[in-house]
Amino acid sequence: MKPFMDKDFLLQTETAQRLYHEHAAKMPIIDYHCHLVPQMIAENKPFRSITELWLGGDHYKWRAMRSNGVPERFCTGQDTSDWEKFEKWAETVPYTFRNPLYHWTHLELRTAFGIDKILNPRTAREIFDECNEKLQNDPSLTPRGLMQKYNVETVCTTDDPVDDLHWHQQIREENASMGVKSEENGSRSSVHVYPAWRPDKSMAVDNVVTFREYVGKLAETSDVDINDFKDMVDALQRRHDFFAENGCRLSDHGIEEFYAEDYTDVEIADIFDKALCGRDLSDEEVRKFKSAMLVVFAEMDHASGWVQQYHYGAIRDNNTRMFAQLGPDTGFDSIGQFNTAKAMSKFLDRLDSQDKLTKTILYNLNPADNEVVATMLGNFQDGSVPGKIQWGSGWWFLDQKDGMTKQMNALSLLGLLSRFVGMLTDSRSFLSYPRHEYFRRTLCNLLGNDVENGEIPFEEMERVEQMVEDICYWNAKRYFKF
Amino acid sequence: MKPFMDKDFLLQTETAQRLYHEHAAKMPIIDYHCHLVPQMIAENKPFRSITELWLGGDHYKWRAMRSNGVPERFCTGQDTSDWEKFEKWAETVPYTFRNPLYHWTHLELRTAFGIDKILNPRTAREIFDECNEKLQNDPSLTPRGLMQKYNVETVCTTDDPVDDLHWHQQIREENASMGVKSEENGSRSSVHVYPAWRPDKSMAVDNVVTFREYVGKLAETSDVDINDFKDMVDALQRRHDFFAENGCRLSDHGIEEFYAEDYTDVEIADIFDKALCGRDLSDEEVRKFKSAMLVVFAEMDHASGWVQQYHYGAIRDNNTRMFAQLGPDTGFDSIGQFNTAKAMSKFLDRLDSQDKLTKTILYNLNPADNEVVATMLGNFQDGSVPGKIQWGSGWWFLDQKDGMTKQMNALSLLGLLSRFVGMLTDSRSFLSYPRHEYFRRTLCNLLGNDVENGEIPFEEMERVEQMVEDICYWNAKRYFKF
Amino acid sequence: MKPFMDKDFLLQTETAQRLYHEHAAKMPIIDYHCHLVPQMIAENKPFRSITELWLGGDHYKWRAMRSNGVPERFCTGQDTSDWEKFEKWAETVPYTFRNPLYHWTHLELRTAFGIDKILNPRTAREIFDECNEKLQNDPSLTPRGLMQKYNVETVCTTDDPVDDLHWHQQIREENASMGVKSEENGSRSSVHVYPAWRPDKSMAVDNVVTFREYVGKLAETSDVDINDFKDMVDALQRRHDFFAENGCRLSDHGIEEFYAEDYTDVEIADIFDKALCGRDLSDEEVRKFKSAMLVVFAEMDHASGWVQQYHYGAIRDNNTRMFAQLGPDTGFDSIGQFNTAKAMSKFLDRLDSQDKLTKTILYNLNPADNEVVATMLGNFQDGSVPGKIQWGSGWWFLDQKDGMTKQMNALSLLGLLSRFVGMLTDSRSFLSYPRHEYFRRTLCNLLGNDVENGEIPFEEMERVEQMVEDICYWNAKRYFKF
Repeated sequence: MKPFMDKDFLLQTETAQRLYHEHAAKMPIIDYHCHLVPQMIAENKPFRSITELWLGGDHYKWRAMRSNGVPERFCTGQDTSDWEKFEKWAETVPYTFRNPLYHWTHLELRTAFGIDKILNPRTAREIFDECNEKLQNDPSLTPRGLMQKYNVETVCTTDDPVDDLHWHQQIREENASMGVKSEENGSRSSVHVYPAWRPDKSMAVDNVVTFREYVGKLAETSDVDINDFKDMVDALQRRHDFFAENGCRLSDHGIEEFYAEDYTDVEIADIFDKALCGRDLSDEEVRKFKSAMLVVFAEMDHASGWVQQYHYGAIRDNNTRMFAQLGPDTGFDSIGQFNTAKAMSKFLDRLDSQDKLTKTILYNLNPADNEVVATMLGNFQDGSVPGKIQWGSGWWFLDQKDGMTKQMNALSLLGLLSRFVGMLTDSRSFLSYPRHEYFRRTLCNLLGNDVENGEIPFEEMERVEQMVEDICYWNAKRYFKF
Repeated sequence: MKPFMDKDFLLQTETAQRLYHEHAAKMPIIDYHCHLVPQMIAENKPFRSITELWLGGDHYKWRAMRSNGVPERFCTGQDTSDWEKFEKWAETVPYTFRNPLYHWTHLELRTAFGIDKILNPRTAREIFDECNEKLQNDPSLTPRGLMQKYNVETVCTTDDPVDDLHWHQQIREENASMGVKSEENGSRSSVHVYPAWRPDKSMAVDNVVTFREYVGKLAETSDVDINDFKDMVDALQRRHDFFAENGCRLSDHGIEEFYAEDYTDVEIADIFDKALCGRDLSDEEVRKFKSAMLVVFAEMDHASGWVQQYHYGAIRDNNTRMFAQLGPDTGFDSIGQFNTAKAMSKFLDRLDSQDKLTKTILYNLNPADNEVVATMLGNFQDGSVPGKIQWGSGWWFLDQKDGMTKQMNALSLLGLLSRFVGMLTDSRSFLSYPRHEYFRRTLCNLLGNDVENGEIPFEEMERVEQMVEDICYWNAKRYFKF
Repeated sequence: MKPFMDKDFLLQTETAQRLYHEHAAKMPIIDYHCHLVPQMIAENKPFRSITELWLGGDHYKWRAMRSNGVPERFCTGQDTSDWEKFEKWAETVPYTFRNPLYHWTHLELRTAFGIDKILNPRTAREIFDECNEKLQNDPSLTPRGLMQKYNVETVCTTDDPVDDLHWHQQIREENASMGVKSEENGSRSSVHVYPAWRPDKSMAVDNVVTFREYVGKLAETSDVDINDFKDMVDALQRRHDFFAENGCRLSDHGIEEFYAEDYTDVEIADIFDKALCGRDLSDEEVRKFKSAMLVVFAEMDHASGWVQQYHYGAIRDNNTRMFAQLGPDTGFDSIGQFNTAKAMSKFLDRLDSQDKLTKTILYNLNPADNEVVATMLGNFQDGSVPGKIQWGSGWWFLDQKDGMTKQMNALSLLGLLSRFVGMLTDSRSFLSYPRHEYFRRTLCNLLGNDVENGEIPFEEMERVEQMVEDICYWNAKRYFKF
């Protein structure tokens, strides 16, 4: 009987244990896609309480609580105290056996707070108090403190083209000034924080009302008078350039499915005019416009040498009643079903055939698509860069042991695991870095098993060790040019 | 080398063995969805032979025999004897290694008949004779006897709204009279047998001929003159009330996919009129009508506080030639492919937004949909009841170790396994209760592995034990209010 | 720690080891579907170099190299030497840990060349030289030599109806003359090489230009003046008869998805006329024509008692730029997404209901379809032949340990593994026979685990052994009547 979450958690063989402790665990973290709020990094204020950290915006936990019969006021309500919410979460925790939340919760307690108690109603109060006491007094539990504690070297946030990036600028300046001081005592001098370009709103013509508002904001920020589609592209190009100047080197797109309709420039200009006049668009027009915008963005990314990311396959805001009450990203999204393989292929081919396909990462949400994505990569690997087209690590609902394992197995069998750029948190929380640990343990376990089963030669152990370090750190470092 | 099917069958760890023997195995069975014939329970006649029990209506076995090259007359033919059919089945059994039929067959022999021989051509005759002898003489092998033998507390059958439920009434009366007598000797006094509402035929407007006939029967049974759609709903409501009076507390719907078209009351009234006049409907009209009926039924279930179940994703009667010969449910159905996630979401949201979403169980037939369903639940969990929206246990083709494991793993990772209402047989046979044993062993094995691997803390063992008992019994008992 | 690829490679239990060494390994190979070039068998010339053998046409390896950042000239270029290409492949090999290429490569080195070194940049030159030296001097490394070395009894190639099959005739004649001589020294007298009927081009009306050219060739070869659809069918029937005379006993069809549109004879005649005049067809016309042709071919196969095979689900030639440069089958294909279950069912039912459904093998490329195909079989098993409808072994991207395991598990659970006709290489290479070894080890491992876990009774071991030999050899031998 292995003790719960001991140092060899998830590591079933000695080889796996050695790979993890001597190689994976030592690598810094590059968190190349997350949803941290740059202002919080810049201001670096201590957290009010563990409730703020854990339940302030974590739709995973809210979903679990609702499934457990916890009323909404203890999830997102304004009339309940930090303790009341925490207490309900603590009641829910023992009902999450086998769910990643159970492991995340205890990994976070251990690695951030040094608490190795099991959270349940009996321990809830002492854990609540101990966490809160530490949050008030321990500087390693501030946003920046946590990033340093977890050996984070680089993070990329997720930002709208209309964002002025002034928090990013402030972080950069502070980093520069801190550099000398902290190198003296040997600690990580600073964490690199880069913006990432997420222009979803500038193609969201499904709703012409909010789209027009957005175009207005974009005109203002970019200082371009937007009267037609050409102006729109100019404005976006200016913002793209501005992001590049501010260290951005990757984009991200959240799409239901891939859009690769045929269209002409004239059609797109007309659709844009129509939207700008506030006239509703047909489904076909919406799809054509999105098809065109995906190409526009991809061409900008290619010209700048950025990496482009596509997260596809969610169906969002399924609960109208709760959307009206809480808005988006509150735990009412789920995995969709889209036969998007041909459109994905056509979109990538369109770019490749004009020699405008930049480095690309594809993230699917439905694991039934795993083999489709894993084999799509190979169609557009052109030998220019190892692993030019990447398959993103298990995303959102799939960011757990089983999801990560399936992704890594399929990538291994149908592509090259060795060239994988590895893990990212995609998280809104400063406590999510143990997910990298989780990923690394899972990776080392897979490789350890293969070596011990005689499926990878022990003579090649040095290469296996290098492969672990590559996937944990070096592949991303080289791929994104950090 | 573990002996075949010993007491620790499927239980790989000591923890799993303890969980099973000390907790799971002791729980009574609530079989909340099955296809038993109420008349057989009421009459409680002994079975003629093991052939009647095993091959009288079991399309799983027929499929295996046909795949094994056995001619149809030995499966469903009228001109072959019980022994001839049994002999062909016994020849087929050794060709079913790795198929659930192999395990079910031997579990049934052991637990019902006390026979632990391996069935094959050499043992066929002695097993045939021994089973038949016992069926004639052992009262624990009658329908009621078997239910008591397997510690069945409650079963819900599957009934059409036009059913008069008189067999259910008779069972209830007999149960009442038997109560005192059997409590004296300490055995289970009686098995609760409830009807369940399966109104598929009342929305089957694909075929207007059979639909009109059905409406005629419904008019008669409900004593409502059905001239328009309003009458139709009135008639169904009366039957729904009647079912409720007779102990019904759940409905079930067999649908290819979810229907959630937009429609108006006028449209539905017109479509109904058209069908009633015997005029064929367009595909769009059929879908609109089904969309409306699903809402009508769901509103009735919500008003009555019932649980509603949806079994979706089969394609039925694929073999026209054999359908003409044998009719439905004879082994010519298979797993379909439907991108129904958005319709499922829209249907549930339609109900939720009017506060008319009752407790709901979703069953998918294609395991490629597993993660879609597992994440759909969370969109409509409202904190009112733990596990309000449920994902049904591995259904039909998926009712086997691998299917159940995948369902439980995905439910664990994407929802709360702890709130799962667990197993049901969905069976036509009184010999299928060992499937609960199979399920329970599989469940205990998963949890045992997790505890022994350090993925669930051993300190929380008491909660794990409770979780096992909950999933085997208490969750269903509370959820359905049995 | 198991040594790399020792004699018990992939065999985790003693039972598995015994099953493999004492049963599976001893069976001859029937490779009933491959893409070997008959001319190479007939001429039996030694290979120029290991580069020709490994990198001459192997798109799996090219894909891996491109993914690893190797420029195209080292994959398919004319200006690079055998050594330069081999060197790049050797550099890539250590990046293929966990990919089947890693195992195939080393299995081929061992079993064909007797080399048990690990291939990497350090060993590249010596392995290159040793292989090439042996290829020049060892007669067991010619095409025929390799087939005999691997105990190949029968292979079926893949041939177009317009092929004159003269290489097949030459092989048959040589086999006849060699028979006596080689039986003297006890070695396999000869390998049976049969053509297989692959008429994809005769239904490829997507492109009327190439279709017309093809019809021209067909007219010439068949000596039928093709002026209308009836002539077309006549011409094909003559070629079908010619193939039958030359030993053909199975057909193969590469289709994106199943086509089962409704059509009339008049419609098909008109569509054919239109295509013959060089007028483009609508999508609907293309689908109708393909639906009709699939039936035409199926009826011919039924009349001749052949087995028909369907490989469906790929999306091909995704990369326009590389297609222009290299043509088809060069590593730019991938797994598609098609909801084809209903069409597959309708097509098979159409044949079955006219009693014209011959023995059939279905191969899916997307593993998300596994359960759909596994359950489709059962709809059309008619008891005439054991395993009449077969599910093809893991195909193309799925021809690896995980893909084969999933296929065998799903077949076991949803059908009869025992009646499976087993492995085929589907390969263009004379070095691919170790894939049969890989398959056999995987099969024995699954069964060995089940026996040792008490899921198959040890008392039935003899039947398990027979089952292994059946799946490796006898089932195919009987099914195809070789």
